[in-house]
Amino acid sequence: MSAASKTAVRSVPSIAETGNTSSRDRLDWLAERRIAIEGIDPEIDGGRFPAKTVVGETLVVEADIFGDGHETFDAALLYREGKDGAWKEAPLTFVINDRWRGELVFEQNGPAAFTVIAWRDLYAQWAYEIRKKVAAGQKVTLELTEGRHLVEAAMKTPRDGAPALPVADQLASTTDESALLDLLLSDEVMGWMKLAAPRANLTRYDKDLPIWVDRKAAAFSAWYELMPRSMTDDETRHGTFRDVIDRLPYVQDLGFDVLYFTPIHPIGKTNRKGRNNTLTPGPDDVGSPYAIGSVDGGHDAVHPELGTIEDFDALVAAAHEHGLEIALDFAIQCSPDHPWIKEHPEWFDWRPDGTIKFAENPPKKYEDIVNVHFYRDAIPGLWYALRDVVLYWVEHGVKIFRVDNPHTKPFPFWEWMIAEVHEQHPDVIFLAEAFTRPKVMKRLGKVGYSQSYSYFTWRNEKWELEQYLTELTTEDCRHFMRPNFFANTPDINPVYLQTSGRPGFRTRLVLAATLAGNYGIYNGFEICDAAPMPGKEEYLDSEKYQIRIWDMDQPGNIQDDIRLVNRLRRENPALQQFTSLKFFKAYNDNILYYGKFDPATSNYLLFHVNLDPHNVQSCQFEVPLWEFDLPDDASIEVEDMLHGNHFTWHGKSHAIELDPQTRPYAIWRLYPPGAPRS
Amino acid sequence: MSAASKTAVRSVPSIAETGNTSSRDRLDWLAERRIAIEGIDPEIDGGRFPAKTVVGETLVVEADIFGDGHETFDAALLYREGKDGAWKEAPLTFVINDRWRGELVFEQNGPAAFTVIAWRDLYAQWAYEIRKKVAAGQKVTLELTEGRHLVEAAMKTPRDGAPALPVADQLASTTDESALLDLLLSDEVMGWMKLAAPRANLTRYDKDLPIWVDRKAAAFSAWYELMPRSMTDDETRHGTFRDVIDRLPYVQDLGFDVLYFTPIHPIGKTNRKGRNNTLTPGPDDVGSPYAIGSVDGGHDAVHPELGTIEDFDALVAAAHEHGLEIALDFAIQCSPDHPWIKEHPEWFDWRPDGTIKFAENPPKKYEDIVNVHFYRDAIPGLWYALRDVVLYWVEHGVKIFRVDNPHTKPFPFWEWMIAEVHEQHPDVIFLAEAFTRPKVMKRLGKVGYSQSYSYFTWRNEKWELEQYLTELTTEDCRHFMRPNFFANTPDINPVYLQTSGRPGFRTRLVLAATLAGNYGIYNGFEICDAAPMPGKEEYLDSEKYQIRIWDMDQPGNIQDDIRLVNRLRRENPALQQFTSLKFFKAYNDNILYYGKFDPATSNYLLFHVNLDPHNVQSCQFEVPLWEFDLPDDASIEVEDMLHGNHFTWHGKSHAIELDPQTRPYAIWRLYPPGAPRS
Repeated sequence: MSAASKTAVRSVPSIAETGNTSSRDRLDWLAERRIAIEGIDPEIDGGRFPAKTVVGETLVVEADIFGDGHETFDAALLYREGKDGAWKEAPLTFVINDRWRGELVFEQNGPAAFTVIAWRDLYAQWAYEIRKKVAAGQKVTLELTEGRHLVEAAMKTPRDGAPALPVADQLASTTDESALLDLLLSDEVMGWMKLAAPRANLTRYDKDLPIWVDRKAAAFSAWYELMPRSMTDDETRHGTFRDVIDRLPYVQDLGFDVLYFTPIHPIGKTNRKGRNNTLTPGPDDVGSPYAIGSVDGGHDAVHPELGTIEDFDALVAAAHEHGLEIALDFAIQCSPDHPWIKEHPEWFDWRPDGTIKFAENPPKKYEDIVNVHFYRDAIPGLWYALRDVVLYWVEHGVKIFRVDNPHTKPFPFWEWMIAEVHEQHPDVIFLAEAFTRPKVMKRLGKVGYSQSYSYFTWRNEKWELEQYLTELTTEDCRHFMRPNFFANTPDINPVYLQTSGRPGFRTRLVLAATLAGNYGIYNGFEICDAAPMPGKEEYLDSEKYQIRIWDMDQPGNIQDDIRLVNRLRRENPALQQFTSLKFFKAYNDNILYYGKFDPATSNYLLFHVNLDPHNVQSCQFEVPLWEFDLPDDASIEVEDMLHGNHFTWHGKSHAIELDPQTRPYAIWRLYPPGAPRS
Repeated sequence: MSAASKTAVRSVPSIAETGNTSSRDRLDWLAERRIAIEGIDPEIDGGRFPAKTVVGETLVVEADIFGDGHETFDAALLYREGKDGAWKEAPLTFVINDRWRGELVFEQNGPAAFTVIAWRDLYAQWAYEIRKKVAAGQKVTLELTEGRHLVEAAMKTPRDGAPALPVADQLASTTDESALLDLLLSDEVMGWMKLAAPRANLTRYDKDLPIWVDRKAAAFSAWYELMPRSMTDDETRHGTFRDVIDRLPYVQDLGFDVLYFTPIHPIGKTNRKGRNNTLTPGPDDVGSPYAIGSVDGGHDAVHPELGTIEDFDALVAAAHEHGLEIALDFAIQCSPDHPWIKEHPEWFDWRPDGTIKFAENPPKKYEDIVNVHFYRDAIPGLWYALRDVVLYWVEHGVKIFRVDNPHTKPFPFWEWMIAEVHEQHPDVIFLAEAFTRPKVMKRLGKVGYSQSYSYFTWRNEKWELEQYLTELTTEDCRHFMRPNFFANTPDINPVYLQTSGRPGFRTRLVLAATLAGNYGIYNGFEICDAAPMPGKEEYLDSEKYQIRIWDMDQPGNIQDDIRLVNRLRRENPALQQFTSLKFFKAYNDNILYYGKFDPATSNYLLFHVNLDPHNVQSCQFEVPLWEFDLPDDASIEVEDMLHGNHFTWHGKSHAIELDPQTRPYAIWRLYPPGAPRS
């Protein structure tokens, strides 16, 4: 797999590119494209970027396909897996208004591609016409001869791989008009002609559209974030990788898939930050792990106080034994002590006085950090070095990277680097920690990020959750941007949670875990930790600048909720997809009411979530009977997924009350007639 | 101009096409594209088809443009006229949410192209940062040196064509920090840097997007359709081209631009149709002009009873003297007597019994017509022959063709043929007479048709007119499909008009003439002729099958309305554009209320049209004061365009009553403060 095969369309040259622009060459070029094929979905920026899917997942493809006149035609998908896999064919079926639809399922993690073909089906057209004429009582002697000729032509030059006509002898011996009509219109002949008849005016869409097939964890994963140095019971004793190993059973028990660490590299000493982001650190202050690099090494080293690379390897192995993958933070900035500054001065911006340019957002300065620059003499050295940092950790068993602030680094770097890594390791997953303008966030998805942070953290009202989720699950971006709904992060202590108390944590947990395929929490969430820096979305005494001791079993923890949602996610296919979301009507602006439906497995879940952490809310709501073609007065079996009891809802209109203190959310599974009981 | 240059994008090969897919080559290819340029409008099917504009018209171009980080950047349009014209630059300005907008005006009828460039503006970023620091009271000694270095670098290697820095001496001699700051931030230096400074990370969109620039008549024309053989005062005397010449002053007086004839070619005798589409013609029946071809010739001949080619030439010349262009009908079907059938049997479908396949739509048969087929041995002969038919008439002064049923012929043929004609004659206009499914109609616009028949004839209700016009004027198709709103045609005697009487004719005239840039009527409309074949949208005693005598001056004619709307169209720039349409609120479902606004010329028209031909309708309506940034209680001057009187509307809410018998429509011109009185 190369960047090229991920990003570039099939090199069928356009007529201008062939140089054959004579009148006759143009005629031939155009004549080969008789059937219009357009409006293909997914096609990202004209095929410049791949659409994403997941191994084993159904990718729905649609296209507008039509010919001239009123003739019958047919169409199919061509698709292949891998860079040079053989092309296979999958059916397309007519939907409405010249729109066709098909489904593709890829089995191989890596690059893939598809395109569309269409052709005139002369025999189907013949059959259509002769049936009309027969029905109108017209004589069809000539038409029968024409039909026979079509079949005989197909017998003479059948398509590759077509079987022999099973009723060839019968056709040769049939002379009676009525018998011939029946034979020519029989399933045997009609079906065989589909396989064997030449495809008239076969038109192939000019582009092979790239697809990137991820492993499932790219689209379905539950993340738990912690800072290894806090895995200690004594603030004066720096936690280690070995301490994290002791923590694995806890994280596994909560039901998470991914254990994610903030940077684990040596921390610079120059301009080190003190507690609560102060500029006056004490001698024992541990600094921000994002000030990467010291005399102990840079991005491919581990902070000595955390342990050795061997300790890290042991942690990765132990995590795997606990069903957990380790995700690392890839943060490109350097502390002023990073070895690269001396080894590669050409990767940095130097000022006229010989100093290095610190990170700044004028008039603010960030003096514990310098940024590399990616152009001029940093090409190609820095690009390769950064790629090799990622590959180094991949070799140490890390296949998931959360990338810090990718929107402040050039898009071409990410496109190149991710393709380089994917060429060797298509199973590597990159999560973009970009909180910026919508189009920039989407672009990062286009250039290769597997997952993206989102605006979820700041979407609290019903209307804005519905609007945002509708955009993400139905617009073009659903093909290339997969959100990861973190409920909190070390950088985001959401205002909502600062004032909501425990009910709000339960609410936001359920929203994050059930609205998105990927979600995460940063440790402390389970004990409803939300003490802020006053007036800010920062945590007070943030772990970013100090070691903190955590007691996750303290009263009021919401571990039970976490275990519940993570179990439901594993057990219910509908929760393992993002676009299976549907919003339904609940007549209260404080109650979000939605479904996650997977018809393929008859897995239908409904959610009522009280967005108001302070008050009991109640409402009438609509049971979506229509989704199962049931009338408004039908009954449907339902299971309360919190308590396990089964019962029946009669009719479309029902009521619910949600007390934030006792039941901030309800989760139901529907069993429409014919759906299997789990 | 070649088809290629119209249809194909600039041949900047993608990385896959270069074959340079090594890691380093990919890096370099991507690194040259640092700034994201996407979401360009207009870009039709990824640049596969040109967007259309008109000589002298403003084409608005938009694009999403953004870089990484928060740096300042700038962008521009590159455009060129003609196939190989020099690239020129036009500004793009930031709108909102990473969207940029610019305007292009092309002066040359023919092919054109544009693309987008963007670059980091290092000096603007430097200025932004130093201003922030100065405002925060920070020391900026180093920053001043950096700024000076940027200017000096630009002086050393300025961009092509940049003038010398006007304040070069002053810069060299300034050492005082405050004076240097003022100088570096002065308009002289900032402005010069825009012209001279190298454009960092200059990124060019990978495609040159094709534009087709039509002459104005492609977008703004009023058509009058007649059948030349009826230009007689005696049903037994076949009208001639000379008779049509006598009719020109009448058509000119009505204010039309285009005089359009149904086919003028020899009419076949075999299976000739009788009056009212009967199969039993009398010996004197003239047949359908759409049964083209006889012993007298085919598509490049004139029907002898109409006159000679010299007569036709005289008619074309006379029409031009009357300010009229002649439009011909291009109908590809042949009568069984067409010379091509013998000369080119390979252009037709032959049956096993040696007969030719007649046109049919089973079980219906059309035995006076056979269709050519376009593939097999008809390539390339038929395609060239048909092209040459068009070129023949072009040489006889015809530059406008109404094409009969183009959707039943292959799209590639049209794309090729129109490009072939445009290569020699970019001023030729093609109108697609396709009444078929929406995507097919739009495809004909994409492949080159200048104008398209539309669903207007069947859109009578307010909601459907608003919905359809909103689609046509705001969706992507506005770039490639220009409707021609015919109010009636020889094939369409609309049900609405069959029952509306004179008020309905006045209503539909005003709608057609003011909603669309192109519109037309078929003669008889002005005398409200609507006698139908019972239960059909066909005319009784249709001219398609017989000669008819017309008295256009008979009582009840609506010539005055026609003269009025055609005069208003010529006098008001807002009516010469299609997308200048805006719908406003009138609180009555029978009154369509819309504006045509051209801010560039301060030309603002409002229309109230009573869609109910039988009843007086009245309503409150909103004067769109907000369009001129006026408050709801403002006053605005207004002119009644039917009666010429000026007055003032005070406030936003007004009322109107429209009596179909006396005033089925009202037309107003608004004069917002500051707009010139015409």
